[in-house]
Amino acid sequence: MKKSIGPHTILHPHPVLLVGTYDEEGKANLCTVAWGGICCSNPPSLYVALRKATKTYGSILSSRAFTVNIPSVSQLKEADYVGIVSGKDVDKFEKTAWTAVKAEHVNAPFVEETPLSLECKLRKSVEVGLHTMFIGEIVDIKAHEEVLTEKELPDISKVKPMVYATGNMAYFAVGEELGRAFKNRDL
Amino acid sequence: MKKSIGPHTILHPHPVLLVGTYDEEGKANLCTVAWGGICCSNPPSLYVALRKATKTYGSILSSRAFTVNIPSVSQLKEADYVGIVSGKDVDKFEKTAWTAVKAEHVNAPFVEETPLSLECKLRKSVEVGLHTMFIGEIVDIKAHEEVLTEKELPDISKVKPMVYATGNMAYFAVGEELGRAFKNRDL
Repeated sequence: MKKSIGPHTILHPHPVLLVGTYDEEGKANLCTVAWGGICCSNPPSLYVALRKATKTYGSILSSRAFTVNIPSVSQLKEADYVGIVSGKDVDKFEKTAWTAVKAEHVNAPFVEETPLSLECKLRKSVEVGLHTMFIGEIVDIKAHEEVLTEKELPDISKVKPMVYATGNMAYFAVGEELGRAFKNRDL
Repeated sequence: MKKSIGPHTILHPHPVLLVGTYDEEGKANLCTVAWGGICCSNPPSLYVALRKATKTYGSILSSRAFTVNIPSVSQLKEADYVGIVSGKDVDKFEKTAWTAVKAEHVNAPFVEETPLSLECKLRKSVEVGLHTMFIGEIVDIKAHEEVLTEKELPDISKVKPMVYATGNMAYFAVGEELGRAFKNRDL
């Protein structure tokens, strides 16, 4: 029989996402979140959840745009750092020595060095409680060419994204392929 | 320089989640989704995104509750199957030989055999486009005792959840621990 452990904000696996924004002065900033994901196929949309206290919260509302950058395992230190300090205190692009590139379709910067960057237009903000969900339409993805499959889609084995595990307070790698999806029509 | 590959609903990593509901006749059903995640710390909340065409969509609206069950790598075939067929056509609990347990706090069934099950009360539904986001408050987590850490939190190395990769159309395992979080205050 399963044991009750009370309510926790734990789901496995969480992603590690870097949200890129310009503030009202046009300064580029980054913020690490584990609470984000796809939420609609048409229009292609994703969300990130943020507290009002963050600098990124205000920047998304003023610019109506953001990017979601997916770092690889080799960028663990930078991704962790970006989630600890505030853009109110430091210039995170300067500290990480990452390059802020103005997105092609939205008013937000993406990180040139991460394998994937999603350009998003803010469509909705939803108050849930301490966190607000920002729902953005994905208008384009920018990718390092070497992480793409033959069909020009990101190959997770080449992107090498991190997994965040709340209960462990640690980052993990993605392991081996287990099997193809949509193959088990019969049991 | 990064390459533009157009808009896609791709984020790395996606979880593999089994949404448990009772329909209006009280029959237990399951549905596999990759689009779900935590969206608020207080109240602890998560979302799952579903199309109106699914049986689960109607069941969440009528019961105002659902569970989110996290299968382990050993349950790949069942999890994939549950995502292919519709509860309108088959009894998925019977086919998978899984046990539907009435949740303690909400009007929804959880899967006894998956290592983790989150009991959720529907708080909000948000129309995004083809998909609707159902935001639920996590009122309790039920866990197999052997997957817990000393602090009674789920240990991802013991839960062994799957990662779904859209671009690969495949399931992956979680790999090795890379490092602790919130440790890199300096770069």
